Amino acid sequence: MSSIGIVSPQTMAFAEPLPLQSGASLRDYMLMYETYGTLNADKSNAVLICHALNASHHVAGWYADDPKNVGWWDNMVGPNKPVDTNKFFVIGINNLGSCFGSTGPMHTNPATGKPYGAMFPVVTVEDWVAAQARLADRLGISQFAAVMGGSLGGMQALAWSIMYPDRLRHCVVIASTPKLSAQNIAFNDVARQAILSDPDYHGGDFYEHGVVPKNGLKVARMVGHITYLSDDDMAEKFGRKLRSMAEKGGAETAGYKFGFGIDFEIESYLRYQGDKFATYFDANTYLLITKALDYFDPARLHDGDLTRTLAKTTAKFFLASFTTDWRFSPERSREIVQALLANRREVTYAEIDAPHGHDAFLLEDPRYLSMVRAYFEQIRGQIANQPKGGTA
Amino acid sequence: MSSIGIVSPQTMAFAEPLPLQSGASLRDYMLMYETYGTLNADKSNAVLICHALNASHHVAGWYADDPKNVGWWDNMVGPNKPVDTNKFFVIGINNLGSCFGSTGPMHTNPATGKPYGAMFPVVTVEDWVAAQARLADRLGISQFAAVMGGSLGGMQALAWSIMYPDRLRHCVVIASTPKLSAQNIAFNDVARQAILSDPDYHGGDFYEHGVVPKNGLKVARMVGHITYLSDDDMAEKFGRKLRSMAEKGGAETAGYKFGFGIDFEIESYLRYQGDKFATYFDANTYLLITKALDYFDPARLHDGDLTRTLAKTTAKFFLASFTTDWRFSPERSREIVQALLANRREVTYAEIDAPHGHDAFLLEDPRYLSMVRAYFEQIRGQIANQPKGGTA
Repeated sequence: MSSIGIVSPQTMAFAEPLPLQSGASLRDYMLMYETYGTLNADKSNAVLICHALNASHHVAGWYADDPKNVGWWDNMVGPNKPVDTNKFFVIGINNLGSCFGSTGPMHTNPATGKPYGAMFPVVTVEDWVAAQARLADRLGISQFAAVMGGSLGGMQALAWSIMYPDRLRHCVVIASTPKLSAQNIAFNDVARQAILSDPDYHGGDFYEHGVVPKNGLKVARMVGHITYLSDDDMAEKFGRKLRSMAEKGGAETAGYKFGFGIDFEIESYLRYQGDKFATYFDANTYLLITKALDYFDPARLHDGDLTRTLAKTTAKFFLASFTTDWRFSPERSREIVQALLANRREVTYAEIDAPHGHDAFLLEDPRYLSMVRAYFEQIRGQIANQPKGGTA
Repeated sequence: MSSIGIVSPQTMAFAEPLPLQSGASLRDYMLMYETYGTLNADKSNAVLICHALNASHHVAGWYADDPKNVGWWDNMVGPNKPVDTNKFFVIGINNLGSCFGSTGPMHTNPATGKPYGAMFPVVTVEDWVAAQARLADRLGISQFAAVMGGSLGGMQALAWSIMYPDRLRHCVVIASTPKLSAQNIAFNDVARQAILSDPDYHGGDFYEHGVVPKNGLKVARMVGHITYLSDDDMAEKFGRKLRSMAEKGGAETAGYKFGFGIDFEIESYLRYQGDKFATYFDANTYLLITKALDYFDPARLHDGDLTRTLAKTTAKFFLASFTTDWRFSPERSREIVQALLANRREVTYAEIDAPHGHDAFLLEDPRYLSMVRAYFEQIRGQIANQPKGGTA
C-alpha cells in the first residue's frame, strides 16, 4: 500500500458571518482543507474526515517541500488503504480556532486589526460542523458517503448525524464518547490552569509580547499525553527504566540522581513531548479545543436522553473502541451503540482488544484497520449501485 | 466512639548527623510527633503511624487552640476506635522534609544560615524510616506492636519490615504499592514541572523573595487530586453539573459560559482544592515527597525480585486495598501479598469494595474499619499473653 504521496492544502474564504452557539458570530473566516482522490460525477463518493485535538486538515500524504510531514491518518486514507482514495473523494478539513491554517486566535481580528488572542470566540463541535457544511455546500456535495473521525473527530461525525441527518449516509465514530465525564473535564481543566497561569500567556495576547506560554503548554501536553496512553502500555514501554541506563550504558552503573531533574525514561519522554508540543501548538487553540470537548453533549438539549437525541439520525453507523482506552473507554461507545439500537438504526460496532490506550485509533492494528476497510467496501458497494445523481 | 480529644505535638532534636541514601547527610534535625494512649511497662504496645503525602504527625484529636484541626486519621485512632488508644500507645510522626514541623526546606540550613530551599537533601522512604527508628530508640521502644500506614505511609511500614525486621511484630500496609508505575511517576512529574516552571518558585528560594509558587502548587494538587478519586465517584459527585445551576438556582436557567472560566462543578471543586492547598503546603516539600514516592522500590536491590526482598521480613502482615483505587490498585497490594506468601509469611489481606478511589483509606467504611479493628484486637491479644519485658 502506498501513500497518496504529494498533496497540497487549499483554502476557502467565507464572507458570510457564521453564527455560533455562544451567541457570538465570526464575521468572516477561512477554512483550510485537503482533498484526496476524485469526486465522482454524481458527487456521491465524498468522505469527510474530522480531526481531533492536535491534528489538522493534513490527513494523508506529504508536502513537496516538507516530505517528512506525513498526514496524521496516512495509514487509514490513501490508495488501497481502508478509506481507499481510488474509490472515495476524501476531504480533510481544519477547524475554526485551530493553529494550523483555518481562521484562529493568531489571525487578525477584523474588528481590532490585532490578533484575536483570547478574543477569538469559543467554538463548539456543532459550530465546526456548521462551518464544514458550508464548505461542503461550496464543493457541491449535498450528501457525504461518510463523515468520519476519531476522538474529538468522532464527536463531529456524531454531530453531523444529528444536525444534518440527510447529508451523510454513514457516520464513522472511532474511540469517542457522547460527552466527557467529570474526570475528562478535570484533566482538561488542569491543562487550562497550567496555560492560563503561565505569565507568558499574557491574558491570551502573548503574540504581541513576542513570547509563548511554553511552560503552560508543556504541562498541558504532559497531562494530556498520560491520558492518551494506557497504564499497561506505559509500563511496557517505560516501566521504571532509568534515563541513566541509556546515558551510562547499563543497569549496573545506573542510579537515582537525587534531584528534581530527570530520573526515569517516562519523565524524559513526557517532558520531550511537552517541549515539542509547545514549539508548534498555540495556547489559545489548546484552550478553545478543550472547551469544545467539555461542551460537547448533544443529549443536553433532550434532558440527557441520548436515545431521543439520536432519533433524528438517518445514517448507518460504524463505531469502534479500544479495550485499554481509559480516556474514552468502550463503555462510552456502547452508550452510543445502545441509543442507536433503541432507535433501530443500523450499527456496526467493533471493540478492539488493543494495548495502546486512546492513541490506538491512530495506530497500526490489523484487526481495526481491516474492520474499517470492510465497512468502507460496503459503502463503496452501495455507491456503485446508485443511479447517477441519486442519493440513498 | 469519642475522639482522643485535645492533643499536643512534641519535638525531639537529634544532634547526630543522619546519613541519607543519596550520600548526603543531615547535620542535625528535629522531628515532630504526637502520642496517644499510654506506653505499657514492657513497652510492647507501641504503634507507629506513618503519614502520606499531605499529612503529618497530627493523626488524631485536636489542638486546644485550634479545635477544628482534627487529625487525619481520627476515625481510625482513638479510644475504642480500630486502633484503640485505651490499649495501644500510638505515635504519629512527621517526616523529614515536611512543611508541618519536622526539619524541612523552610528551616535554616546550618551551613548557610539561610532556609534550605531546594538545597534540602532529597530524602527517601528508607531515610524517613531510619529517622523514625532513632526516635523509637530515644523513646526506648525496641519493638513496635505494629507499624502502620496508608499509601506513602504504607511504603514506610513496608520499609520498616525490610530494614528493621526485629523491630515490629505487625506491619499494616493500606492502599499502597511495592513501587510506583510509569503512570504514577508521570503524574508526579507533571506536578513537579508545574511547580519548577512557576516563576515564583525562584529555583526553590522563594522564601527569600516573599512569594509562594501558588500557581504551580495549585496545578500540582489538581492533577494529584484527580488520581485520588475514582472516575465513578467523580461522576456521582459532580458528573457534568454546571456551576451556574447553583448560582442561578436551577437547571432551566443554567448554561455554558463560553469562556475559559469555570463552567462545571468539578472545575470549581478542583480549583478550590488547588487554591487551598497552595496556601498551606510548601512547594519544596511537594517536590521532595513526590521524589520519595518515585524512588521507593525496595526490590530494586534484588533485581526486581519482591519475594527475595521480603525474605528478610519476620513481621505478620495486614494489607488492604480498595477496588476503585486506580492510583495504587488492588493488583499492587496483591503483588506484596503474593511475595509474602511465597516467603510463608502470615498475611491477612482485605480487598474492600469501595467507591471512593485511593482516598478510601482515609474515609469511613464500616467493612474496612472493622477489618482493621479485628486485626488490632488480635495484636492486643498477643500483647496480653506476653511475659513482662518479653517480645514475641
